[in-house]
Amino acid sequence: MKFTVEKKSQNSLARAGKIETAHGVIETPAFVPVATQAAFKGVMPEVAKAVGTQVIFANTFHLHLSPGEAVVKLAGGIHKFMNWSGPIMTDSGGFQVFSLGVAYGQGVSKVAMTPRTVLKRVPQGQSLGLLSASLVKIDDDGVDFRSPRDGSLHRLTPEFSIAIQHDLGADIILVFDECTTPQATDAYQAMALARTHAWAKRSLAEHERLGGDQALYGIVQGGRFPDLRTESAQFMSTLGVDGFAIGGSFNKEDIGVVVALVNKQLPFDRPRHLLGIGEVEDIFAGVASGVDTFDCVTPTRLGRHGTVETKEGRLHLISNQFATDFQPIETDCACPTCQHYTRAYLSHLFRSKEMLSTTLASTHNLFFFNSLMAQIRQAILHDALDAFRQQFLARYLPR
Amino acid sequence: MKFTVEKKSQNSLARAGKIETAHGVIETPAFVPVATQAAFKGVMPEVAKAVGTQVIFANTFHLHLSPGEAVVKLAGGIHKFMNWSGPIMTDSGGFQVFSLGVAYGQGVSKVAMTPRTVLKRVPQGQSLGLLSASLVKIDDDGVDFRSPRDGSLHRLTPEFSIAIQHDLGADIILVFDECTTPQATDAYQAMALARTHAWAKRSLAEHERLGGDQALYGIVQGGRFPDLRTESAQFMSTLGVDGFAIGGSFNKEDIGVVVALVNKQLPFDRPRHLLGIGEVEDIFAGVASGVDTFDCVTPTRLGRHGTVETKEGRLHLISNQFATDFQPIETDCACPTCQHYTRAYLSHLFRSKEMLSTTLASTHNLFFFNSLMAQIRQAILHDALDAFRQQFLARYLPR
Repeated sequence: MKFTVEKKSQNSLARAGKIETAHGVIETPAFVPVATQAAFKGVMPEVAKAVGTQVIFANTFHLHLSPGEAVVKLAGGIHKFMNWSGPIMTDSGGFQVFSLGVAYGQGVSKVAMTPRTVLKRVPQGQSLGLLSASLVKIDDDGVDFRSPRDGSLHRLTPEFSIAIQHDLGADIILVFDECTTPQATDAYQAMALARTHAWAKRSLAEHERLGGDQALYGIVQGGRFPDLRTESAQFMSTLGVDGFAIGGSFNKEDIGVVVALVNKQLPFDRPRHLLGIGEVEDIFAGVASGVDTFDCVTPTRLGRHGTVETKEGRLHLISNQFATDFQPIETDCACPTCQHYTRAYLSHLFRSKEMLSTTLASTHNLFFFNSLMAQIRQAILHDALDAFRQQFLARYLPR
Repeated sequence: MKFTVEKKSQNSLARAGKIETAHGVIETPAFVPVATQAAFKGVMPEVAKAVGTQVIFANTFHLHLSPGEAVVKLAGGIHKFMNWSGPIMTDSGGFQVFSLGVAYGQGVSKVAMTPRTVLKRVPQGQSLGLLSASLVKIDDDGVDFRSPRDGSLHRLTPEFSIAIQHDLGADIILVFDECTTPQATDAYQAMALARTHAWAKRSLAEHERLGGDQALYGIVQGGRFPDLRTESAQFMSTLGVDGFAIGGSFNKEDIGVVVALVNKQLPFDRPRHLLGIGEVEDIFAGVASGVDTFDCVTPTRLGRHGTVETKEGRLHLISNQFATDFQPIETDCACPTCQHYTRAYLSHLFRSKEMLSTTLASTHNLFFFNSLMAQIRQAILHDALDAFRQQFLARYLPR
């Protein structure tokens, strides 16, 4: 993997660049749509590509549970298995341990990504000895958890996460980490961070032992605590990884501040990914704070629940107000949905629970985010990011 | 609409022809995939077209309930509303009155098409005076029913069904009829048939009063009773309609016999449609008995429940036996699914409840049926239907 910064903003940390992988080039800043189980929800890969998707994000935790990394490896790797020939990232499973564990049902940011399971909250750091029916248990060596699919017992360690990710074969893989909640105490965050750093070292060692040409990103944690974030960024900077992901569950108003703090510490010449963040205003904040790539389920999750993004904010198409609205979602949008379908038709599909509702809305949303990133990139290249951001958000989020 | 028979089989009633409509030509025999609510379940119209779909079938009953024919008319008609520029047929709502009424929960043929509702069975011909919460009530003027969507009360008459179908704007529309069960008595069938014939006359009169260039098909009913079927075919033949549909719920072994009996009575120069029949062996029986077009939900209903058609019979892909089967569904299939995806991937998608499972399996199934019809057509054109049928079914249904 090779990363080049093409242009750095004058008055922010934003930069435009390109990440070259064995499966193609990613022009940054880039949005990374999520195909959790090696499939976009309701959108064919060729359609995702046609609406500008450059790189996608799949989940190690889910693919380990089904179909299993052995099946994906036998298939010739995840690219071949799912028919996506472009670049792919996989996470390490650390976030799902968080979402099924301490964060489960707590309503903290990103928790809406949690699979609906019968697992219940487990108090942080509580040692329960034996695994009960509803449990994620973290120790210094790794994590025990139950499958939300069938309740079966599993264990992830840094070494095993990396081994799984090698079998899956994505272009960019992540170290195994512990993601904490914004509510965690100083003491817990510090303890979790030490563990995350130890796991990063073990992940890198296993990655080097296994060989191959996948890029490994370190993950910066530390919650809302500037000293811990700084410590984590400095630690990851010296680790010898190919790039960086910034993890953790944020309070919305913290994102820009915390991310800027981290990115000021990270080496300029390696790519930075912001994990699980994908609301329009957060993307602008992230880009201005030096982030190159963002993964998020936003386009497809919104899409399958009837919500589409427009330059003037979100529309909830299931509403009867759209029943006779024969405009496209956006009149000036070039996506396949807006070329051929009206709000009225989509509204009918959502009210009638037709699967194509998800397909059409998610296709538009993917196009929207990919186009937004392309415009942001152009704005950076032309030293006009601040103006573009103000102009875009004034229409998108009028106060 | 113009219908031409290009070739008649030597030793059966089969024929190859073409139906020319304002929205394009249908080469027959043809399969007519169902887009009940003006959408294929999980398949985009352009994909349905790319896999050979020539003409589609939408349901008046469902579209009346949502979005309502007024909305479709305002949109510029059903073609524009749903982005299908080819020929479209609509049914009259008569079948849904059957499926929500006498047939509901009785397990007779075609009942699997019944929407899942809270409506219960109403004894045939029973007069209940007032509508209760669970009711379809048929009288000589029309039918009262409750919406399976929200329980609201509605009434369909021949005139109203035709008016709705004129607003929807399909190329081929159907008279309003009463569909009976194979279990109905002689006396009930005769009574229902007299009503169906009276409704056909009223449908035609309303169709002529409203004007326009849609083609109207009569519907031949009469259940399993040869005398009633003959009477009905003769009645419809003299009615002055543009084509014919053969309705009714069949016992499987009766299909060929009853349909041949009917088609021998119907004028040779007008197209014949067999309503709701779409299993491979029934299509062969129908074609050999003189049917030109078949609508059925089979491809998409099978597809979304994990079953795909192959030349060697059906495969239930959700089964674990396909978890590491890296062949396409069919190695010699040219459909987009078989070009890019394996049984193993589809099996994973079905087990993981991913929407793309429906899309990929249904796309293959649509291609399968469209290809089968194209091969049947070629066999008729080359006087080789019997041989093709024997050869195909020997592989598809080995005894």
